[in-house]
Amino acid sequence: MKKPLILVTNDDGITAPGITALIDVAKRIGEVVVVAPDSPQSGMGHAITISNPIRLHPSNVHEGVKAYECSGTPVDCVKLAKNVVLKDREVDLCVSGINHGSNAAINIIYSGTMSAAMEASIEGIPSIGFSLLDFEYDADFESSKPFIESLMRFALEKGLDGGNLLNVNIPKLSRSEIKGMRVCRQANARWVEEFMESSDPRGQKYYWLTGRFVNQDTSDDTDVWALENGYISVVPSMHDLTNYQAIKALGAIEKLEQAGE
Amino acid sequence: MKKPLILVTNDDGITAPGITALIDVAKRIGEVVVVAPDSPQSGMGHAITISNPIRLHPSNVHEGVKAYECSGTPVDCVKLAKNVVLKDREVDLCVSGINHGSNAAINIIYSGTMSAAMEASIEGIPSIGFSLLDFEYDADFESSKPFIESLMRFALEKGLDGGNLLNVNIPKLSRSEIKGMRVCRQANARWVEEFMESSDPRGQKYYWLTGRFVNQDTSDDTDVWALENGYISVVPSMHDLTNYQAIKALGAIEKLEQAGE
Repeated sequence: MKKPLILVTNDDGITAPGITALIDVAKRIGEVVVVAPDSPQSGMGHAITISNPIRLHPSNVHEGVKAYECSGTPVDCVKLAKNVVLKDREVDLCVSGINHGSNAAINIIYSGTMSAAMEASIEGIPSIGFSLLDFEYDADFESSKPFIESLMRFALEKGLDGGNLLNVNIPKLSRSEIKGMRVCRQANARWVEEFMESSDPRGQKYYWLTGRFVNQDTSDDTDVWALENGYISVVPSMHDLTNYQAIKALGAIEKLEQAGE
Repeated sequence: MKKPLILVTNDDGITAPGITALIDVAKRIGEVVVVAPDSPQSGMGHAITISNPIRLHPSNVHEGVKAYECSGTPVDCVKLAKNVVLKDREVDLCVSGINHGSNAAINIIYSGTMSAAMEASIEGIPSIGFSLLDFEYDADFESSKPFIESLMRFALEKGLDGGNLLNVNIPKLSRSEIKGMRVCRQANARWVEEFMESSDPRGQKYYWLTGRFVNQDTSDDTDVWALENGYISVVPSMHDLTNYQAIKALGAIEKLEQAGE
């Protein structure tokens, strides 16, 4: 049987330990092509580069795979992979990560890792973003690997029924402490921001984003609940942002008078 | 009665004609505070600035309103507005735009205009993003104004029941040609990308994103349908990206064996 073609990307950059771990797993399963940012791109969300040229260079950072580093955003990487690097080839699966830090709950919106995975899913490629709840550069990705391999094989063999994008977050636990996987919904949590205010060497004021994550969504069917209780969270996700319930509720808008001159 | 407090932002930058038109309308209704990017930020999606400081300076580009220009992304602008500029004040409505160009269908994902509006909605502020289907710098925003004013008054007086975020796109038509407003869903359309490939003056290859918009979603309840048929499209939107239908379909994931060992 033909080996599946697996596209690997991330947002922490092509040299991050997290993507090395993900490539290790992908190599056991299929032919691997890597297109990843040439520098960290955390927090880039679904940004694309439209007003500037993008560079794409071969990279030999990772052994035994075809790899390219890209000057653009994570979403740019996926667009270049699909339309330039792998033009005329069918990609069987895209995996993004392993992100250093959580992309559970509202973090999916800000995450370059998940936006790259979502871009692939928009292009019709089954796609999974992986994140480990450990921000450290030398985080231990070993206990994640068996679960990641199972999920990748599942996606390739069974397909991602009724959707083609998964947001997978892995608690910072040893393999024996991880209780299993939970298919769940995105918790309704958010960041409460503060800005650190300071002055540069020329005396000019600047602001630096900081904040704390607040979850008031306490039911047991969310990704935050799963992670806090020792499970890997698996949230089927999508790019249709329509609030269907509100369509009917807001029907009165269709009867609004135009405001006067 | 106290005037409502209205936050205005955009992604085309604080000097764009589109935001000037939006400020004109907002001034008729309430107290207006503007926090907008100091340069164009189209296609920034939900990007945030986490690895660099952000600058915020007063601006006198717009008469009769308090305005600030910000070096960050559209989402940074909203975070700074809420947490620094308007700290301790309750914002009654956020409006973003008027964007020069469509944010219908999948464009909502890439749009800085809509991401700014969504960020405000995440913070609990009712929020509307406006876009005119005209990319020209000197686009005519006049025929949009009566509809925008009606929608802003509706949001302030009745609230955005069952949701607090609207994606509003306005066709490039004269006021008498616009048939009215349609509350609808996001069309399942996407971009088919191509990259322009060329070489810089040093002979180094670069890529530049281009593409064409393709809609195969032909039913009459979408934003693309509304716009093609002379209506303003109003899509209630949200930041919960969970694919609820897929949760049950993918339940088998919870029973997967771990790979290897």
